Amino acid sequence: MTNPDDPTSLALTEVDLPQLKDGEVLVKVQAAGVNRADLLQAKGHYPPPRGASEIIGLECAGVIEDPGTTGRAKGEQVGCLLSGGGYAEYVAVPEGQLMPIPEGYSLAETAAIVEVACTVWSNLGMLADVQPGQTVLLHGGAGGIGTFAIQLCKALGATVAVTAGSAAKLETCRELGADILINYREEDFSEVLKGRCDVILDIIGAKYLKQNLRALGEDGRLIIIGLQGGTTAEINLGALLPRRLTVSGTTLRARSAAGKAEVVRSTIEHVWPMLIDGRVTHHIHTILPLADASRAHALLDSGEVTGKIVLEVA
Amino acid sequence: MTNPDDPTSLALTEVDLPQLKDGEVLVKVQAAGVNRADLLQAKGHYPPPRGASEIIGLECAGVIEDPGTTGRAKGEQVGCLLSGGGYAEYVAVPEGQLMPIPEGYSLAETAAIVEVACTVWSNLGMLADVQPGQTVLLHGGAGGIGTFAIQLCKALGATVAVTAGSAAKLETCRELGADILINYREEDFSEVLKGRCDVILDIIGAKYLKQNLRALGEDGRLIIIGLQGGTTAEINLGALLPRRLTVSGTTLRARSAAGKAEVVRSTIEHVWPMLIDGRVTHHIHTILPLADASRAHALLDSGEVTGKIVLEVA
Repeated sequence: MTNPDDPTSLALTEVDLPQLKDGEVLVKVQAAGVNRADLLQAKGHYPPPRGASEIIGLECAGVIEDPGTTGRAKGEQVGCLLSGGGYAEYVAVPEGQLMPIPEGYSLAETAAIVEVACTVWSNLGMLADVQPGQTVLLHGGAGGIGTFAIQLCKALGATVAVTAGSAAKLETCRELGADILINYREEDFSEVLKGRCDVILDIIGAKYLKQNLRALGEDGRLIIIGLQGGTTAEINLGALLPRRLTVSGTTLRARSAAGKAEVVRSTIEHVWPMLIDGRVTHHIHTILPLADASRAHALLDSGEVTGKIVLEVA
Repeated sequence: MTNPDDPTSLALTEVDLPQLKDGEVLVKVQAAGVNRADLLQAKGHYPPPRGASEIIGLECAGVIEDPGTTGRAKGEQVGCLLSGGGYAEYVAVPEGQLMPIPEGYSLAETAAIVEVACTVWSNLGMLADVQPGQTVLLHGGAGGIGTFAIQLCKALGATVAVTAGSAAKLETCRELGADILINYREEDFSEVLKGRCDVILDIIGAKYLKQNLRALGEDGRLIIIGLQGGTTAEINLGALLPRRLTVSGTTLRARSAAGKAEVVRSTIEHVWPMLIDGRVTHHIHTILPLADASRAHALLDSGEVTGKIVLEVA
């Protein structure tokens, strides 16, 4: 990161190979997914958790170069959920954060789904336990999280509502299975969905809090995983009690290694079969070389991306 | 209610017998519990849900006078979770809200534990699923909810922290099993418990929101069941995400009949055995005649009550 005021100021540089800790493998990276959190980190707003690599990158796929103290085989292809370090040729990964390559997937395609699959499943599956017939609202339906979550919710039998900022993005959401399409520039989603949502997966935070609570029905649950619309809001607690509403905030990155391993295990168990049989698929916007990470960040920052951007190591 | 500005302005009056709906029994009331929500209703701040009796009173115990269309026996003694109507000689009760008299309990003792047992169990058992070794913070430890919840949490194997406003109240909490005693007039509970609580059961709301979030540890859950300290607060959503915090609000009264029946069933299954073997017991402050309901409200409003007040029909 060459200029903390500019999230796109990235440059390739040489560093030492990561040192393996007990239980870690060294992975030769083939492809790394780009996430909005990477933009935040480049701006200095999302420091890596203690002990994590200072290098940006929360997911990758590649080949095990050194299995360390684990029983893994050198040469095994793996997807990796990372606390950092993905934008590099090599990364050290705790064994519990390795994922198999879904049958039929390339390494680039795997790098595009690791973080999003673990994020979406840990929130909508493990935490909210979305059930058939429930209504789930996904903000940013055309983004990396949204495009994946639409398909997952449909596979779970839910009715899916999405917000997005253009007709083209909403059309993408519709093609992926979304049932209720809301252009947030033209409509107030809380008016459309008032009292109807069982679960909301939110990336906006403060700006949407009041409307999100209004959109929830009895026993409804709001899960906030991003704060693109600010952190501090006024909340009317009196709105929570009669409908028994719940507001949760989560991040995957802040979980302990044991917590991440639990998420990875559950995601492989529940989501990988959906990837293999095609009920859920990756949605890649574009693949760029690692050396173009700066361009990738500028592209994601533009808001004109549908699905995921992947970086490939040459 | 003779004066909505004064929660203690209550007077006995004659009304018609309640009409039974399908699935309801007519209960001749022997004793009714007094709850803080009754004070709110007397002030006009807590209107009864649609279809509920306009008469105050959320719990009672008595004898079935008319089993209606249910298969119940006339003369059966029962505890009753009510949506209203407890401060009366007769009340209509959906069968799903009837509870057996715990072995060894009088009707007055039963009337003192129905609402509190269902409230505490539905939140700490059904919703928070309190586990052995967890730390639970109970605000108002010496009140009706608190005195019951301390015992229940200890029976579940939790470490119990309480707040109360006097040394005498804290001594009561200690006798009931509380491990960490905090006088809120002398100490900031969030300083004492920072990051240590798994579950907080809160009756204060807005005034404590920030401190409650500070007291929670990873995956911590705040459950708000009362708003004695106001409804509207500023919330820093950024505090939720890294520790994966959850804020819920609930009321028992607003649940549907089916929802109440589910709570009643689960409470009988899990809490009644604790009452029968003595792990959890009632804590009655005083018993007054129904004609003294006004005095009962004044007493509860004074804040000088430890445990429950019960009204008895002469």
